[in-house]
Amino acid sequence: MSDSLQQSEKLRGEEAIIRLLAPLAQGYPGAFGLEDDCALVTAEPGTKLVLKTDPIAEGVHFLAGDAPEDVAWKALAVNVSDLAAKGAKPIGYLMALSFPEAPAQDWMVRFAAGLRTAQERFGCHLIGGDTDRRPGPLSVTITVVGSVPQGRMVRRGSAKPGEAIFVSGTLGDATLGLALRKTPGLAKAWGLSTEEEAYLRQRYLRPEPRLELAPALRAHASAAMDISDGLAKDLGRMCAASGCGASVRFAGLPLSAAGAKALAAEPDLCRRVVTGGDDYEILAAVPTSEAPAFQAAAAQAGAPVTRIGSMCAGTGVVVEGLDGRPMSLDHPGWDHF
Amino acid sequence: MSDSLQQSEKLRGEEAIIRLLAPLAQGYPGAFGLEDDCALVTAEPGTKLVLKTDPIAEGVHFLAGDAPEDVAWKALAVNVSDLAAKGAKPIGYLMALSFPEAPAQDWMVRFAAGLRTAQERFGCHLIGGDTDRRPGPLSVTITVVGSVPQGRMVRRGSAKPGEAIFVSGTLGDATLGLALRKTPGLAKAWGLSTEEEAYLRQRYLRPEPRLELAPALRAHASAAMDISDGLAKDLGRMCAASGCGASVRFAGLPLSAAGAKALAAEPDLCRRVVTGGDDYEILAAVPTSEAPAFQAAAAQAGAPVTRIGSMCAGTGVVVEGLDGRPMSLDHPGWDHF
Repeated sequence: MSDSLQQSEKLRGEEAIIRLLAPLAQGYPGAFGLEDDCALVTAEPGTKLVLKTDPIAEGVHFLAGDAPEDVAWKALAVNVSDLAAKGAKPIGYLMALSFPEAPAQDWMVRFAAGLRTAQERFGCHLIGGDTDRRPGPLSVTITVVGSVPQGRMVRRGSAKPGEAIFVSGTLGDATLGLALRKTPGLAKAWGLSTEEEAYLRQRYLRPEPRLELAPALRAHASAAMDISDGLAKDLGRMCAASGCGASVRFAGLPLSAAGAKALAAEPDLCRRVVTGGDDYEILAAVPTSEAPAFQAAAAQAGAPVTRIGSMCAGTGVVVEGLDGRPMSLDHPGWDHF
Repeated sequence: MSDSLQQSEKLRGEEAIIRLLAPLAQGYPGAFGLEDDCALVTAEPGTKLVLKTDPIAEGVHFLAGDAPEDVAWKALAVNVSDLAAKGAKPIGYLMALSFPEAPAQDWMVRFAAGLRTAQERFGCHLIGGDTDRRPGPLSVTITVVGSVPQGRMVRRGSAKPGEAIFVSGTLGDATLGLALRKTPGLAKAWGLSTEEEAYLRQRYLRPEPRLELAPALRAHASAAMDISDGLAKDLGRMCAASGCGASVRFAGLPLSAAGAKALAAEPDLCRRVVTGGDDYEILAAVPTSEAPAFQAAAAQAGAPVTRIGSMCAGTGVVVEGLDGRPMSLDHPGWDHF
């Protein structure tokens, strides 16, 4: 439990928590100001609704003492990231909040402010939820609802051998940022400037869903998903669902300047870049004939993508290391069990 | 953590858990066999979608050691109960499962079987979800999606003074059942037969959402909600949202034979019947001109309702006790904080 949860006046009663969250429902009529038992959602003509639930818990998906604004952002962003990968746009979200003890007024006010920042950026509203008290870590379980033009959701299992594999942004920043947060002195060992360290930490705290990429994905990608459990693992999932394999070159992976600096100092971090979680970048398979148009549309939208390899016949993912040989990965990515 | 979670072989990896749950997605195309990142939901022409999330956690909403089939049933039933109150019918549900340690194969198989029983009864499918490991109690967070004819969702805040107040089924059984589970010897003190004790325990373990009442609510009720935190508290919420008050006579509350027997043995339990949680019965306000038709339609549908009082001008809920005086309630119902 974060220290700030111990400070300031405790909120008394579920209604007090709901009152602080109700302003986040304003502007969406079907949320009924959080004063009804259910939310009412309309699918615009020609669209379908896309749903996803992805919870975060203290000590697992964020650290004890993280700022409530950051926790709120991450809780919503990890869900919106999935919508982006499917070519969908967010409409609203339901949120189940579990506290081990009544939250402090101050903490809830800041958490609600963080949600407001996030939902305004992503273009959606809080439309319903629940709050309870139970032992264990603070947890935030969001279910997001988005819309996609009928027949246009980008699937995970429809990649084909020969297609180009793209990723958005840069990989590995978040897992390096988490390492920096957990191990004092690491920034010095990696030779990072204060700005570089702050950048990597921020990438862990505030994932940026690539919503601006959704139209380009709908137009050009044959398959897509977001990378949340590490490139190797999530690409493996795309391969398994698509019935093919994939080949990727580590040398082709997009790294941030800070990430590249850390790797130069500690080359073995390449394994971490490939298997670490929390990237929340988009992984897409694109027919080679569409690749230039996809790349141009992505750049135009402000979400540049990098080609990292190709889908191929067979099964499984091969990552060619800097030495030209397949990297051996003890475990391909994050698994809770 | 339930004992059965410690026995038999542990499931290894999230994929093993998903494989056990995937059959529950069969028959709903937009669930993609749980093999995509998101679910795709269609609103039939002329309908809107109704959404609700209501989590349950071990030690809070169910007891350690409860049968996995019962946990699964309750996790879905408490959500479906809200849909019923809104006049909606279930389509599908997303489920976030959190375990403190990898679940045993045996436990998960039984949990999935319990979900199958529940979803077949309620007419919906598992369409997506997430599973993680974290300290704290086993928890199941379901978000249910239902559909309701456009413009026909039954609201909470639209009751009017003078309207008749109805409830479905019988009240207090679940809270008495929970007391029986927690306090050995209570069944004897209350003079209950084995069957009567089993009935009350079952009412706690297996709430029955009153889905068959949905059409009658849409046709006749001006406001409705389900009773999950106790009659006094939930009726108070309906009053607050509707801007009126309510007057109820304890003598008019529907009790089961077992509940009535317990109250005869311990008259002070009347307070518990009015404020105890877990009823999952429907509370509805109905214009008096519609009351006979509502009652007939409910009986016809196999979900009999009882008139317990009237909405009135003013604010707050008055429950007239058996002595003819307003009951004094220390707290009106369940609150987590």
